[in-house]
Amino acid sequence: MMRLKLYTKTGDKGQTSLMGGRVSKDDLRVEAYGTIDELNSFIGKAVTELDSQKFKDILADLETIQHELFDCGGDLANVMKERKYKLQEASIEVLEKRIDALTDEVPPLKRFILPGGTPAAATLHIARTVTRRAERQVVSLMNEAEDVPTIVQKYLNRLSDYFFAVARAVNFRLGVSDVEYIRSGDVFK
Amino acid sequence: MMRLKLYTKTGDKGQTSLMGGRVSKDDLRVEAYGTIDELNSFIGKAVTELDSQKFKDILADLETIQHELFDCGGDLANVMKERKYKLQEASIEVLEKRIDALTDEVPPLKRFILPGGTPAAATLHIARTVTRRAERQVVSLMNEAEDVPTIVQKYLNRLSDYFFAVARAVNFRLGVSDVEYIRSGDVFK
Amino acid sequence: MMRLKLYTKTGDKGQTSLMGGRVSKDDLRVEAYGTIDELNSFIGKAVTELDSQKFKDILADLETIQHELFDCGGDLANVMKERKYKLQEASIEVLEKRIDALTDEVPPLKRFILPGGTPAAATLHIARTVTRRAERQVVSLMNEAEDVPTIVQKYLNRLSDYFFAVARAVNFRLGVSDVEYIRSGDVFK
Ligand code: B12
Ligand code: B12
Ligand code: B12
Ligand SMILES: C[C@H]1O[C@@H](n2cnc3c(N)ncnc32)[C@H](O)[C@@H]1O
Ligand SMILES: C[C@H]1O[C@@H](n2cnc3c(N)ncnc32)[C@H](O)[C@@H]1O
Ligand SMILES: C[C@H]1O[C@@H](n2cnc3c(N)ncnc32)[C@H](O)[C@@H]1O
Ligand SMILES: [Mg+2]
Ligand SMILES: [Mg+2]
Ligand SMILES: [Mg+2]
Repeated sequence: MMRLKLYTKTGDKGQTSLMGGRVSKDDLRVEAYGTIDELNSFIGKAVTELDSQKFKDILADLETIQHELFDCGGDLANVMKERKYKLQEASIEVLEKRIDALTDEVPPLKRFILPGGTPAAATLHIARTVTRRAERQVVSLMNEAEDVPTIVQKYLNRLSDYFFAVARAVNFRLGVSDVEYIRSGDVFK
Repeated sequence: MMRLKLYTKTGDKGQTSLMGGRVSKDDLRVEAYGTIDELNSFIGKAVTELDSQKFKDILADLETIQHELFDCGGDLANVMKERKYKLQEASIEVLEKRIDALTDEVPPLKRFILPGGTPAAATLHIARTVTRRAERQVVSLMNEAEDVPTIVQKYLNRLSDYFFAVARAVNFRLGVSDVEYIRSGDVFK
Repeated sequence: MMRLKLYTKTGDKGQTSLMGGRVSKDDLRVEAYGTIDELNSFIGKAVTELDSQKFKDILADLETIQHELFDCGGDLANVMKERKYKLQEASIEVLEKRIDALTDEVPPLKRFILPGGTPAAATLHIARTVTRRAERQVVSLMNEAEDVPTIVQKYLNRLSDYFFAVARAVNFRLGVSDVEYIRSGDVFK
């Protein structure tokens, strides 16, 4: 068998391939799925920081999400005439159920909290903010192009709320209290 | 009591709320405070890597900074006619004092150093560079909009220097030497 | 000797110095080397997570790369009439040799894998995606300016493939299997 030649050098001039097209590497589409790939890597990091006994449910969530982010990336990279998107509305509903369940685990909240606490929660807050960065780029792409699957933005919007809920749950299960932002108003209703 | 419903779905179409306005999620203003939120999360991470005995002073700094970054974010998100900004010049002066004190702890420096060393210092270097990313976005916003509190940019400018100084101090206290960039000129005066 | 005054306050108005020029801090050039600095910091993080016995070769790679990224940054920041770039083609050839060697260590691959596994591999995947972000910005700069050393983009393109190869090798040496993306086609040829 021929060895995998990872580097194809086809991108050495600044252009790259989508599924069904060729664009500059700084195209908003490439930017968007590149950031989703970055986000996916931070989730990979959080996974290494979660105890496999205490956080079975959350580790299962995170693995599902890692696969779904590949679906998102693939859907954004796909500009073929005939195409079927991979990400489904059902994934968003599952996220919503999980947000509610995790929110029910923790004490009620009125004010903003400082991102941090335990190592895993800190990384999940990073994931939360990188999700929001990805969402902003998908919105930029939607403002520019016609054929962007809008479900990806909706998914990312819900996903960042999931990360907020899960970071709190992780801290709570480990007995670490979130610290409130001292000059916060009552922002959560 | 009604349970908190974290996801309001009001941002599912790509628009979002400021204090006193509604904009696209890829608005420069949202970008800027979104990155400040990301930065805040990296600080949360660094906090988990610092020994609470050896680094009492630095942990106190970092908590203050986390609150001040919320002030920054809030000040940027606030576009109401009648508004009072939260971030004050005094916070910058405190940063300057801390930079000087931490710089005095460590050996003099002429050349660039490789970011890294101990785990906490490595994360503080990440925070340093994310601070600078946030600063660039605030500058973009200032180049575009009139009503941006300029103190936020000044604060971020000083904050990235604080992170450089504190990363060096952390390594030094733990007995780890910074590695100089081999092809560096004498850049620090 | 006068103490180093780290903060010069010269950038408090949003402008900053290149070698041989002065620009807004949100200039694409500043953006590009700022992101390279961020990338460099993530490498500093990965270094702290790699055992110095098991990963001697990889730690040597990473230190070389940290120096080379300073070369990249310096080359981008340099807009003087008379200039000599620091980064050389030979560095790319070394990366290619290392990619091939590391790829030979691990089982053959057909499908995308989830970024993650061991802590160091997870961080190396983050470095991979931040490298790609830096590459996109260098491409933006190349699309806008004339005098950009094209070798930097080529170097970053190869570097992201290096990080993919090295993340896999780290997991493999530690006995951790990469998880395939379940809905992946056979993408690697
Ligand atoms: C999108 C993409 C990515 C995305 C991943 C996708 C995602 N879901 O987010 C991201 C950005 C994350 C990515 C990352 C990487 N990638 Co990539 N990626 C691609 C790309 C553009 C498409 C891959 C893909 O999903 N193809 C579609 C799959 C195979 O589809 P399928 O199962 O066959 O079927 C679909 C279509 O083919 C179609 N179809 C199938 N049959 C038929 C028949 C008909 C008649 C029709 C009309 C349609 C049709 O329908 C299906 C549904 O979409 C390819 C380049 C290309 N244009 O192929 C590179 C490519 C696979 N990537 C490559 C590389 C190197 C990488 C990275 C290692 C880069 C790096 N250094 O980080 C990483 C690895 C990531 C990982 N964790 O494993 C290389 C592999 C080189 C090699 N030696 O093989 C490629 C080939 C690009 C290149 N250099 O030329 N990648
Ligand atoms: C800015 C903002 C953020 C900023 C935080 C602020 C900062 N300082 O950096 C960032 C981007 C970090 C953020 C993050 C999040 N946020 Co937010 N955020 C907001 C926003 C736009 C404003 C909140 C705020 O500070 N309000 C001002 C506070 C409450 O002010 P105040 O104390 O009442 O008083 C001020 C004003 O009201 C005014 N005032 C008061 N009284 C009066 C009277 C008069 C007459 C006048 C003229 C003025 C006035 O003066 C005061 C000084 O400014 C609100 C939406 C909105 N428009 O309210 C969402 C909101 C609070 N966020 C929300 C959410 C969900 C989040 C996140 C969980 C999102 C995520 N997934 O990451 C995180 C949580 C972060 C955390 N660590 O806790 C939701 C909460 C939903 C709910 N169920 O309640 C909201 C409501 C947005 C929404 N979806 O509709 N957020
Ligand atoms: C580029 C740059 C960076 C880059 C680093 C470079 C890279 N390679 O990626 C980045 C963005 C990473 C960076 C980061 C930082 N930087 Co800086 N950086 C600079 C900058 C613009 C140039 C430095 C440099 O490399 N000079 C060139 C060196 C010294 O060249 P040289 O060896 O003398 O020789 C070259 C040229 O001078 C020329 N040359 C030499 N002799 C001659 C003769 C002739 C006749 C000719 C024609 C040419 C020539 O040829 C050589 C080849 O290029 C300077 C500001 C400036 N304009 O000098 C700030 C500067 C050095 N940075 C500064 C600071 C504070 C920092 C940070 C701490 C900021 C932060 N908070 O993160 C970090 C520290 C990073 C670290 N890890 O150590 C400050 C230092 C302040 C002080 N007290 O001294 C400076 C002075 C900027 C300022 N504020 O005014 N920086
Ligand atoms: C909680 C607050 O965060 C802001 N907001 C909403 N979506 C994003 C995003 N993707 N990135 C950054 N900020 C966002 C809005 O101002 C919202 O009200
Ligand atoms: C140390 C050097 O870093 C550059 N510089 C100054 N501010 C920023 C920023 N926010 N982001 C990236 N680079 C910056 C300038 O070129 C300065 O001289
Ligand atoms: C593997 C796939 O990743 C995309 N690609 C190539 N270069 C970059 C980059 N710098 N950032 C994000 N995505 C990139 C292309 O679509 C390529 O085919
Ligand atoms: Mg949202
Ligand atoms: Mg500065
Ligand atoms: Mg590439």
